[in-house]
Amino acid sequence: MSRFVKKISRQSGLAPGTLVHIGDERSAKVRITYFDYNESKCEEREIKNVEECFPLKHTSTVSWINIDGVHDLDIVEKIGRNFDIHPLVLEDVVNTGQRPKYEDFEEYLYIVLKMIYYNGKDKDIKIEQVSLLLGKNYVISFQEQEGDVFEKIRDRIRTGKGRIRKEGADFLAYAILDAIIDGYFSILEKMGEDIEIMEEKLIKEPNPRILRKIHSLKRDMIFLRRSIWPLREVISGVMRGESRLIKKTTSVYLRDVYDHTIQVIDTIESFRDMVSGMLDIYLSGLSNRMNEVMKVLTIFASIFIPLTFIAGVYGMNFKYMPELNWKYGYFAVLGFMALVGLTMAAYFKRKRWF
Amino acid sequence: MSRFVKKISRQSGLAPGTLVHIGDERSAKVRITYFDYNESKCEEREIKNVEECFPLKHTSTVSWINIDGVHDLDIVEKIGRNFDIHPLVLEDVVNTGQRPKYEDFEEYLYIVLKMIYYNGKDKDIKIEQVSLLLGKNYVISFQEQEGDVFEKIRDRIRTGKGRIRKEGADFLAYAILDAIIDGYFSILEKMGEDIEIMEEKLIKEPNPRILRKIHSLKRDMIFLRRSIWPLREVISGVMRGESRLIKKTTSVYLRDVYDHTIQVIDTIESFRDMVSGMLDIYLSGLSNRMNEVMKVLTIFASIFIPLTFIAGVYGMNFKYMPELNWKYGYFAVLGFMALVGLTMAAYFKRKRWF
Amino acid sequence: MSRFVKKISRQSGLAPGTLVHIGDERSAKVRITYFDYNESKCEEREIKNVEECFPLKHTSTVSWINIDGVHDLDIVEKIGRNFDIHPLVLEDVVNTGQRPKYEDFEEYLYIVLKMIYYNGKDKDIKIEQVSLLLGKNYVISFQEQEGDVFEKIRDRIRTGKGRIRKEGADFLAYAILDAIIDGYFSILEKMGEDIEIMEEKLIKEPNPRILRKIHSLKRDMIFLRRSIWPLREVISGVMRGESRLIKKTTSVYLRDVYDHTIQVIDTIESFRDMVSGMLDIYLSGLSNRMNEVMKVLTIFASIFIPLTFIAGVYGMNFKYMPELNWKYGYFAVLGFMALVGLTMAAYFKRKRWF
Amino acid sequence: MSRFVKKISRQSGLAPGTLVHIGDERSAKVRITYFDYNESKCEEREIKNVEECFPLKHTSTVSWINIDGVHDLDIVEKIGRNFDIHPLVLEDVVNTGQRPKYEDFEEYLYIVLKMIYYNGKDKDIKIEQVSLLLGKNYVISFQEQEGDVFEKIRDRIRTGKGRIRKEGADFLAYAILDAIIDGYFSILEKMGEDIEIMEEKLIKEPNPRILRKIHSLKRDMIFLRRSIWPLREVISGVMRGESRLIKKTTSVYLRDVYDHTIQVIDTIESFRDMVSGMLDIYLSGLSNRMNEVMKVLTIFASIFIPLTFIAGVYGMNFKYMPELNWKYGYFAVLGFMALVGLTMAAYFKRKRWF
Amino acid sequence: MSRFVKKISRQSGLAPGTLVHIGDERSAKVRITYFDYNESKCEEREIKNVEECFPLKHTSTVSWINIDGVHDLDIVEKIGRNFDIHPLVLEDVVNTGQRPKYEDFEEYLYIVLKMIYYNGKDKDIKIEQVSLLLGKNYVISFQEQEGDVFEKIRDRIRTGKGRIRKEGADFLAYAILDAIIDGYFSILEKMGEDIEIMEEKLIKEPNPRILRKIHSLKRDMIFLRRSIWPLREVISGVMRGESRLIKKTTSVYLRDVYDHTIQVIDTIESFRDMVSGMLDIYLSGLSNRMNEVMKVLTIFASIFIPLTFIAGVYGMNFKYMPELNWKYGYFAVLGFMALVGLTMAAYFKRKRWF
Repeated sequence: MSRFVKKISRQSGLAPGTLVHIGDERSAKVRITYFDYNESKCEEREIKNVEECFPLKHTSTVSWINIDGVHDLDIVEKIGRNFDIHPLVLEDVVNTGQRPKYEDFEEYLYIVLKMIYYNGKDKDIKIEQVSLLLGKNYVISFQEQEGDVFEKIRDRIRTGKGRIRKEGADFLAYAILDAIIDGYFSILEKMGEDIEIMEEKLIKEPNPRILRKIHSLKRDMIFLRRSIWPLREVISGVMRGESRLIKKTTSVYLRDVYDHTIQVIDTIESFRDMVSGMLDIYLSGLSNRMNEVMKVLTIFASIFIPLTFIAGVYGMNFKYMPELNWKYGYFAVLGFMALVGLTMAAYFKRKRWF
Repeated sequence: MSRFVKKISRQSGLAPGTLVHIGDERSAKVRITYFDYNESKCEEREIKNVEECFPLKHTSTVSWINIDGVHDLDIVEKIGRNFDIHPLVLEDVVNTGQRPKYEDFEEYLYIVLKMIYYNGKDKDIKIEQVSLLLGKNYVISFQEQEGDVFEKIRDRIRTGKGRIRKEGADFLAYAILDAIIDGYFSILEKMGEDIEIMEEKLIKEPNPRILRKIHSLKRDMIFLRRSIWPLREVISGVMRGESRLIKKTTSVYLRDVYDHTIQVIDTIESFRDMVSGMLDIYLSGLSNRMNEVMKVLTIFASIFIPLTFIAGVYGMNFKYMPELNWKYGYFAVLGFMALVGLTMAAYFKRKRWF
Repeated sequence: MSRFVKKISRQSGLAPGTLVHIGDERSAKVRITYFDYNESKCEEREIKNVEECFPLKHTSTVSWINIDGVHDLDIVEKIGRNFDIHPLVLEDVVNTGQRPKYEDFEEYLYIVLKMIYYNGKDKDIKIEQVSLLLGKNYVISFQEQEGDVFEKIRDRIRTGKGRIRKEGADFLAYAILDAIIDGYFSILEKMGEDIEIMEEKLIKEPNPRILRKIHSLKRDMIFLRRSIWPLREVISGVMRGESRLIKKTTSVYLRDVYDHTIQVIDTIESFRDMVSGMLDIYLSGLSNRMNEVMKVLTIFASIFIPLTFIAGVYGMNFKYMPELNWKYGYFAVLGFMALVGLTMAAYFKRKRWF
Repeated sequence: MSRFVKKISRQSGLAPGTLVHIGDERSAKVRITYFDYNESKCEEREIKNVEECFPLKHTSTVSWINIDGVHDLDIVEKIGRNFDIHPLVLEDVVNTGQRPKYEDFEEYLYIVLKMIYYNGKDKDIKIEQVSLLLGKNYVISFQEQEGDVFEKIRDRIRTGKGRIRKEGADFLAYAILDAIIDGYFSILEKMGEDIEIMEEKLIKEPNPRILRKIHSLKRDMIFLRRSIWPLREVISGVMRGESRLIKKTTSVYLRDVYDHTIQVIDTIESFRDMVSGMLDIYLSGLSNRMNEVMKVLTIFASIFIPLTFIAGVYGMNFKYMPELNWKYGYFAVLGFMALVGLTMAAYFKRKRWF
Repeated sequence: MSRFVKKISRQSGLAPGTLVHIGDERSAKVRITYFDYNESKCEEREIKNVEECFPLKHTSTVSWINIDGVHDLDIVEKIGRNFDIHPLVLEDVVNTGQRPKYEDFEEYLYIVLKMIYYNGKDKDIKIEQVSLLLGKNYVISFQEQEGDVFEKIRDRIRTGKGRIRKEGADFLAYAILDAIIDGYFSILEKMGEDIEIMEEKLIKEPNPRILRKIHSLKRDMIFLRRSIWPLREVISGVMRGESRLIKKTTSVYLRDVYDHTIQVIDTIESFRDMVSGMLDIYLSGLSNRMNEVMKVLTIFASIFIPLTFIAGVYGMNFKYMPELNWKYGYFAVLGFMALVGLTMAAYFKRKRWF
């Protein structure tokens, strides 16, 4: 399956709102955890049955329900029914081929993002779709699998450091957005280093292996851009969208996230410029090398071909060739050859061919 | 006839509203079918005479009249007269060179789309113009020929699955739009696979045949883009256009279609970037190969030309050439030649030419 | 004179409103014809003196005055005075280097267009500037010379077919715009065919003659674009511009013309993409050919240079060369040479060089 | 000093409004002339002391004060004080590195333009910054040196031809703008011709000298674009900017100037497209030539290297070489060589290499 | 660490508003100085403890507090608390990886800029982030280290030259912005000169060292663009943003800064065009050189290979070779060889190969 088109077509023609999981096949059990907190108390639990978190809808405390895994359609459907989520939203939650977007359903906001992070275990880049549902006093986050960039948020909730325990669900949503965008910076840093290393190698010795790396970097960047560009609209949408779910004090924080997003986009664009500059260097490096090869050939050929011709002349078997009988004919010819050779060499030297 | 310009010129100078069929010549009989349904009942019929569907205009049930074939101008004209359609709309219906567009005539909406799908029989991509007329309680769809992507919608109507039977004509129109956009995803998937296969081949061995394929892919993409880009405006037009024919509940669904359209456009743009990257790889692959060829030539020439010269020297027929009379002259020269050859080889080795 | 800059500079510094004809020198007599019609009557005349059409200004019938030739400044000036046209408009009428534009002078609209059509006689593309003045009940059209794309409009007026005789001057102006845009389609069709033929040739055999053709096509397209792009604004201006001279029923027709304009622009852009793709093919075709040439050279040189060296060795005149005296030395060497040659050939075969 | 960055840095850090002349060093005396006219009278004078023109501020006639030379800061300052000009404007007047711009100071408008024209004497392109101050009944124009494109305006004022003497200061300002824009057309015409001549040469024989010319043309165009693009905003600013200094009747004329500006921009853009097309031709011309050179080499080498090998074989000194003793061996070998040579030639002929 | 991505990730996950210094490690002591002035008095001090400047918040005089060094988080925090600055602003102040931006917090404006200047000591370009806080009667400026472009502003304050002492804090902020933008011009001037020098070298002799320089220039430009483009928005934001902190008289001055910013951007864009033109010249220069090399090779090979062949023919050892016994055979052959050689030379001469 192509990395660029998720098999949305499998769903094609079905009634809208029919849940169909689109994404990598997964069999792991879906893990559901929740935080329920306000300034004074904080409860953290992992639950077996999704129904256990339903009462949280009506508490006045802030609740963060996190679902690791969207392949269990049953769970998603139950949550949807309990929290009054539109069927089309649920359809998008389980379809991991979504584009980042933001939708305002009055009672709740729906935000889709791409989380990019290094997986500690296999030192690999992971891309996961994260769907956020922000209600009056709850945030529900859907991830594709366990492992995320939210650990420090959890710590802040647990320890009550910073403002997070004092603020509402909208601040929690902001913290999640912020953590995801920050994740992009680590990836960009890594890319930036790769680019610099490659540039150095490139100048030393252009070889097709590097071209392949440039190309793969370029593809990664096309892919990253697709995930990141829409973010701009998403976050400015959340920020500006007059939803009464977002308090004014939180807007200032969202503006900060927005700035970071612009910075990420800027950086990606700079990288694109730099990578396309690398291609130019590569191609002109190839031309340069060809030039060098050609010069070596030309110097050898141009020096020795005339000499060989002279040798050939005196190798002819004519009866009457006066020079052949001269006493120092041989040495004279050798000297003449040396003269010709040196003249040629001097000529190429003057042309700065070596 | 060029694939890019339909012979609109045949029509040039005629009075506006004069129907002229523009498209592939077709002789097949036009097939007219209709669905007439509400929540409780559902009638499906194929009719002989177009007049049989005229009463549907006044029923309160939702009617979907589908016409396979727009080359029979008489049928189009009769429908136009019965349903009070503007002559310019009819002109556009029979001209299959239209650009996707959306027009609001108060009493009805006119939507032109391009349907792209795989024809099961000959495993070929089919592109058809689909014209939709959405009235208060009817949808009329015109296609160029039999075969479409609507079979699953028909099933849903027949079986009453999902919301389709409970909703009005606007929901039906949405379902049709949705099916058409979903069709694009299958094509994009296929293209994505082609691109990945080509990339692999390209890196292994750049040959002109692949260039030709890249080029034809590029042309397909230019063509596809032209069909898809205007869709964005069309669907946002339907969605935002304050037509009273579109209910608010349906708008949410249209937003979903809009998202898919953006996704299709995004994907096409990514493909374009990737294909133009492939061209770069191809060209630098060519340069690389040339480099290799040149190196082989240079190595051979540079090693053997000096040796041949030496042989030439001792092939001269001078009377007095002392070396010729040395006992081990021949072997000394052979040894010297070997030395020269090995020196050259070492030099190229050090330059990493092989 | 450059095709791209008309000698507007000749006019430079003159008082504004001074008429100066800018365009190809012409000596043909200016031909003035008019139609004067309403639903019941239709008069068509060719007149000698421009004054004969002046009464048409005040009749209630629709009048279409067509002037073939703008080099007779006297005629243009007289019309201007009679119909109360602003001097700057007259200046633009006689300056054929105008950009398509649209200006609303309350009492009349001024529209400048470029008419492109095939001249039947010399099978050549003609580009003429057409200036339209649309008043309450008259249309005045200025062309550079005889011959245009309006013959079918005249037929419709004469025969009273279609709505044209029932509608006002604004509908006539629409019909003229429509005919001009339709003219572009014929040119695009021709170009589309040229492009396809060239592409086929290009793939068969890239030669500099084709490059020249691509380049000239490119220039034509630059030229065409310049004429067509501003049309978009012009027609949307006429359509949207709240002039009371344009009736609401005519607006629908103008929307149709607008769609066609967009289609023309779309097609031009696709052509540009395709032509720039052709250049890529051409360049990589050249590289390919060079590769082929180099391979032939390398194969010949690499096979025969070592062999020649061997022959050279046994052509040396050393006294003591044991092989020379062997009975089958000659044949052994021949065999060795064959072996070397075949090894080399096999090597190149394995590298897929031939 | 780089042509692209005027030494604005010299000014850096000074108090705003401090006059510092930035531009070519000049020593010529500043020449001040004025026109003072209304419909009935017209006075033209050259004055020695700038103070002589101060009374013009309060007359009801239209006054045009022209200052040739902005390097005499004293004069500029005095004018500024008398006419109540903002210090920052004066700073801009003497800094010739300005970008075309337009500023509305209620009592007067400040317009900066670049005047481009051919200097009659040394047949050279001159670029001068022209600053216009348009007050209620005066226009003050600052130029860098004597010589300009306004001679025809002066003639019109002197002779009273056209409307200029009947209109106010805003019409005079329009006339000046118009003359400057018209000046661009002469330059563009010249460039257009250069481009066409170069294109012809290019197709005949691509050589590095032409590349240099293309490059210098490209630089000129970059430079021109920078001067011209902002004009669009400037003139639309003057036209639309609701200044009460611009009468409505003059607006129509400004629209005309605006159209010309767009035309100039259009032309520059077309030129850019064409010049970048020329580069493509040049590069592919180079490739073609290389191809030709390679073919010649390959043909020679491929024909003669095998022949030389054959000759080498029969030059070997083996005792037992039966052919050597054949009576017609020599001729047989010559014949065989001819055969080989012709076969090779035929092969290349068939490949269309010559 | 990559120059393009500052390690924002170190901060990732922390509570918002937590200060983390991001930038080059610095150990120098933070230097705090302030100016406190009005029209009549002016006090300048360097202080040890940040608390000493806190009273300035409430004086009616204009105060400019300058902090050289943002790595001492304690100082920044104290200032923030005293002047009621939002924690997120403080976070941005100490994070030197910010993008230029402008934020309006009603009570104060926050402006981030990049200051670029030549360091006198090590002749190096320095890039520093400057954060400005503009309150009712104070400006606080944060720099990364000592050394800046504000010396002339300080002089103007000390001496009371110009309007600065008569105006408020907004004028001071303008002066700082102005000085920073002026700093860009010096850098651009230097770049402009580099480009011109490189262009000349390029035309004389394209070598890979120059390519490297072009590439590094290109990278510098990508970097500079990223710093400068957002400035446009920033300054137009300050100018237009209806903050009551900016007086109307100051707006005129800001418009001047805005013009300069546009000029800087224009210049950068021109440079980009020129540098990409240089790459074209470089590449075609390489092709040209290759052409030259190939021609030399071809001329030598094509002249001498046939001659060597002839010599080879007469070096054959056939018993019966009539020419060998001719008296003047040798000279005849030499003459024939000369003829062949000259013919070849003439052929290449005619082809203008040398």
